[in-house]
Formats: sequence, structure tokens, C-alpha cells
Amino acid sequence: MKLKIAVLPGDGIGPEVTKQAVKVLKAIQELYKHNFEFEEAFVGAIAIDRTGKPLPDETLQLCATSDAVLFGAIGDPKYDNNPDAKVRPEQGLLQLRKELGLFANIRPIKAYDSLIDKSPLKRDIIEGTDMLIYRELTGGIYYGEKKLSEDGTVASDLCEYSQMEIERITHLAFKSAQTRRNKVTLVDKANVLESSRLWRRVVTEIAKGYPQVTLDFLFVDNAVMQLILNPSQFDVVLSENMFGDIISDEGSVIVSSIGLLASASVGNEKALFEPIHGSYPQAKGKNIANPVAAILSAAMLLDHFGLNTEADAIRKAVELTLEYNIVTQDLNVVRNFGTDYVGDTIANSIL
Amino acid sequence: MKLKIAVLPGDGIGPEVTKQAVKVLKAIQELYKHNFEFEEAFVGAIAIDRTGKPLPDETLQLCATSDAVLFGAIGDPKYDNNPDAKVRPEQGLLQLRKELGLFANIRPIKAYDSLIDKSPLKRDIIEGTDMLIYRELTGGIYYGEKKLSEDGTVASDLCEYSQMEIERITHLAFKSAQTRRNKVTLVDKANVLESSRLWRRVVTEIAKGYPQVTLDFLFVDNAVMQLILNPSQFDVVLSENMFGDIISDEGSVIVSSIGLLASASVGNEKALFEPIHGSYPQAKGKNIANPVAAILSAAMLLDHFGLNTEADAIRKAVELTLEYNIVTQDLNVVRNFGTDYVGDTIANSIL
Ligand SMILES: CC(C)[C@H](C(=O)O)[C@@H](O)C(=O)O
Ligand SMILES: CC(C)[C@H](C(=O)O)[C@@H](O)C(=O)O
Repeated sequence: MKLKIAVLPGDGIGPEVTKQAVKVLKAIQELYKHNFEFEEAFVGAIAIDRTGKPLPDETLQLCATSDAVLFGAIGDPKYDNNPDAKVRPEQGLLQLRKELGLFANIRPIKAYDSLIDKSPLKRDIIEGTDMLIYRELTGGIYYGEKKLSEDGTVASDLCEYSQMEIERITHLAFKSAQTRRNKVTLVDKANVLESSRLWRRVVTEIAKGYPQVTLDFLFVDNAVMQLILNPSQFDVVLSENMFGDIISDEGSVIVSSIGLLASASVGNEKALFEPIHGSYPQAKGKNIANPVAAILSAAMLLDHFGLNTEADAIRKAVELTLEYNIVTQDLNVVRNFGTDYVGDTIANSIL
Repeated sequence: MKLKIAVLPGDGIGPEVTKQAVKVLKAIQELYKHNFEFEEAFVGAIAIDRTGKPLPDETLQLCATSDAVLFGAIGDPKYDNNPDAKVRPEQGLLQLRKELGLFANIRPIKAYDSLIDKSPLKRDIIEGTDMLIYRELTGGIYYGEKKLSEDGTVASDLCEYSQMEIERITHLAFKSAQTRRNKVTLVDKANVLESSRLWRRVVTEIAKGYPQVTLDFLFVDNAVMQLILNPSQFDVVLSENMFGDIISDEGSVIVSSIGLLASASVGNEKALFEPIHGSYPQAKGKNIANPVAAILSAAMLLDHFGLNTEADAIRKAVELTLEYNIVTQDLNVVRNFGTDYVGDTIANSIL
């Protein structure tokens, strides 16, 4: 298959881990005779430094003309504690999601047997955990009108949802549940929010078209508790943008390292693949970042184009290196390996 | 001391656990020679059933003329999955908070040594956890304008904050940090929300008046992870209404049973004390609900009026019964005791 892949390494550890993902994709390309074309562009703080914009026009242009985007991470501490910065790295990612129409963020959260004992939770709690979170990604309070009064004493953000925005991701979630354990849990705050009540109505209506799938509801404050108390109860979890951000990050730590978790952001035409760990600036340039999340994001990219055998080959190679404890320091305090070395081992283990 | 206490048992297990809290307050009254006057009123689903309103006028009137409110729980499943119900039990609680000006919800989260092994988290993770969460309670998206378009296809909620609303709770949080470990962590989403950026500006300014207190910032998605990975890093945690709801419920499960956790909601004049567990309808009337959270809420009530010796006496009695394993079924699968019996034991253990 011929694929043009836009590579956006971004900030912090983004470049280091993305490099390993590209390495693995090149190994796949060679073994399975594909034709992958990679082209790099800037995004985030590094893009602001070079062009003044977190998402330069050339970057957006490249993504729009590519089949998929392989994304690293964005964010830099110099912007974090400065509420008055007019331009911020995150805007690049938010704008990219909107411009490419990536309305669904999909995060698999699965307990790896060889890593269960590294979880902060007890073994019997997380054993059997295998869920898929569908987070709405281009609506809600992230994109609603923002206001600051002239005198700077009142600020507001609007959380708005339309039926159409809810419908399209809900169909994806239910379709995916049909290929899994036939269960969807909607996380919201319908006892307080009007927008959550719209979500319940629309999702309840759509559920009727999928009679074999069970639909459950959970208030977000209860959901953050259930994720800790009994994570294996979940199959597909569906949520709006902000609650989805919160529960998917929480979900990521219960199954051990956030350095393992990949995500796909998909729309009707484009798709972006991204490790969920963020830029982790303290580790930048030290060759200690875990490349597995970026590599598993590359596997999700292949799945997206129907290359499931190739995607499985990557996942098997990852599991093998985990079993043999060829891992970065976040996963083993006894003996660690560098980002590069782990990437090489995975690339070389692909069959 | 003479105190008039409005007792609002509410729904589900609310009446059962509130009864134990009143029992314990009566034991204190007798031993320490106080004059507590208790008067009951309806709130929540039971109030809707009887009067059509979740917060009847007489109930509000009683609270307004009392020194403090002892609250049980509200909520009934018959309203939960019905997004079209016009009157809902939660409105009673939300309206009460607003009418009484209870702008700060305060939740202590502390690991009890005798219960650490019952936590879903590993012992070494939660050992030493001792935090106090300050959640803003009368602003933000809970109270902002709610809209539903005529045709029912677009819904929105406004999250709005003013400088004054942020200032008053921030002062409480910093003052309390001064009596503890001198650390405040603000949880927000300042990389996305205008209202969060106002919080950062206002809190940063106020922090200058408390030079001995360190101020930290954490994005909410990171906060839900840190609570699981390293909860003992927190001292005082400060947050807006919705994020505060989420992190305080998450915090409650990491230290074992939600049946142990109390909260105070305070304003400039009034104060309300409430277990955080909610109405738990499945357990209603079975004499299995854990009364400890309600009893510890009564202790917070006494603290609020400067009766610290009496409050400590309650806490010691609770710790004693926990140590002797006189606990309800949520805490011990081997041998359990009823709600009543645990309440009696605590009341009788007060010295
Ligand atoms: C960087 C930030 C704006 C972003 C978000 O909140 O969406 C991140 O947390 C994520 O989940 O991808
Ligand atoms: C019942 C509900 C409206 C309420 C809230 O979200 O404030 C509850 O979850 C709480 O935390 O007291």
C-alpha cells in the first residue's frame, strides 16, 4: 500500500519517541513491501519559536494532503504558568483537530499481563481490564465561546453540543462495541448539565438501532471512582470532550505506565495517531522516554488502513520486548534501556 | 453552647445514617453539657413526592434560621435516566447551596492506618495521604446559563467565574494551608479554558499575601493521574466546582471506603455538613449503610463552632471502632455489623 504520512514530532520527548515509531513503520514497510512516504513538519512550542504560530500554514497544508498524521507531543513549561500568553502550543493541536475534522479520539486501555504488578492498583482490581474510550474531540467547552470582561474580572467558557456532533461519534462507539463485548457506557453529568441531558437523549435514541448492545449511564464523578474500584466492568466508554480528557487520562495510569498508551483521532476523512503521554519536558533529550506509546500509535495507524496483520506484528513485537524486560526506566527500576535501544529492539523483533 | 441544628435526612440511606449522627451529637451534648436543638425537614426526592418541590419553602426557612445544617443524601434512580424530568432531587441541594451562600466545600481525605489494606491502591502508594480539598460550590458551570434550542437539537451550559468568587475561597484555602503543611495546589485546565486562566491569575495574586505557602498548578487531567500515582504529595487542593466534584470523589476511593468521608460546605454565615457518599438507593432500609461519614460530618460541624475537643472525641471513638473492626459490610467481608449497631458503638465510645 502507498501511504503518505505527515510526521509532526512537536515538543519535549515528542521527537525522540516519534523517531522510534517511524523506525518501526520502516521495518514494516520493508518486510511487508509497502510504500510509506514520510514528511516532517513543526507543531507546538517549537513551531511558535520558529514561525510565531503553533500550527504553521505549511504544517496544516502537509496534513491536509497526507493520508495520516503521526503526532508526537506538544507543550512547554514556559507557557504553562503564564495565563497571559496570547499564543500557546496547545492551540496548535486544538486547531489541527478542528481543521482536520477529527471528532473522535479513541484510546484502548488494556492490562498487560507482564506489567500488572507495576500498576498502582492491586492486581485483582485491574486484571481483565480491556476498554476502549471514545472521547468527542472537536466540540464542547474546548471550542465554545470564551469571554473575558474588559476589566478582566469575569471570565467564561461555553460548553455547547449539537445533536449531529453527538450522533456521529455515538455511531462509531456502538459499531465498535458490536465487535467487542456489546456494552457502551455514557459518562456525563446529566443531573446538572443541559448539554449532558442532550447527550443522554441522543445516545438513547441511537442505541435503539443497536439492540444487541447494552447502554449504561454513569455520572462523571462516579465514573472516576468506578475506574479505580472496578475497571474491568467497562467495554466501550463514550464521553464528551472535557470528561473524556479526564477519564482517559485516569484510565491510562490504572494499567501501569502512561508511556504505553496510544490513541487515534479520527474524522470522516483524516486521521491522526498520537501517544497520550504528552511532552514530558523533564525527560527531553535524555534518551529515557518510553517509545512504546508512539510505536503502538503507529500500529493504530496501520489498523486504520486495514493493515491489521502488520499492526498485529507491531503489537506482538512490543509484547515480546515487554516480556523480556527490554524497557525504559518508567517500567523497571532494576535494569533500564534507552529510548533508542527499545525502539531498535522492537523494530528488529518484527516478523 | 446552644446550637440549633436543621436535620435534612433526604433520600436513600440518608435517613439511616443521619440518625446515627444525631445519636452521636446527643451523646456529646450530654457528656459535654451543651444544648443542641434538632429539627427535621424534607429535601430531595422525598420532598418532591410530598410537596412537588425538591427544596420546600419550610425547609429553606428552617435552614435559614438554624445555626447549621446536618444533611443526609439526595437522589433517586427514578429521576436519573430521565433527561426530561422537569423537577429533580439534585436541584434541591444546588438551590440550598446557593441560597445559603455555601461557596466552599471542604473534604478531608486521609488514609486510616487500620484501613489502608482495604484500598484498591497499593499500601506504599497511599501511606501518608492527608489532604484537604477546597471545592468552589456556588459558581461555574453548575450555575451558569443553560440553554436548549427550540427544536431540541442544540444544548449549552455556561461556565462563568468572577474574581470575587475565586478570591473568597482562595483565602480560606491558603489560611487552612498555613495550619497544615503550607502547600496549595490549584487544579484547573488553564491551557484550554478562559475561566481557568482567571483562576490562575487571581490565585497567583492572592498567594503573594501568604509568602510561607507554596502554590502549585496542575491540569485536571494530570491531577486525576497524580491522585492515583502519588496522593501523598498533596496538602491543600483548590479547584472550581466541576473539577472539584470530580477530584474529590476520586480522592474518596483511594483511601478505602467512600462510606468514611465527611464534608463541610461553608459560607460567610451558614454551614452545612454532609457525608459524601450520596443516597445509595440499593442499600436503603437494609441497615447496612456505613454511618461513619455522617458521624464524621457531625464532628466537622462541632469543629466549625470551635468545639474541637468534642469533635476530637468523636473522631477518637470512630477510630476505636474501626480498630476493633466494628464496621459495616463495605469495610469487612468477614464479619459485619449493622448501621445501628455501629452508630451505637461509636456513641457509647465517646469519652
Ligand atoms: C494539550 C491539551 C489541550 C490536550 C487536551 O486536553 O485535549 C491533551 O490533554 C490531550 O488530551 O490531548
Ligand atoms: C448530586 C450532585 C448534583 C452533586 C454535585 O455534583 O455537586 C454531588 O455529586 C456532590 O458532589 O455533592
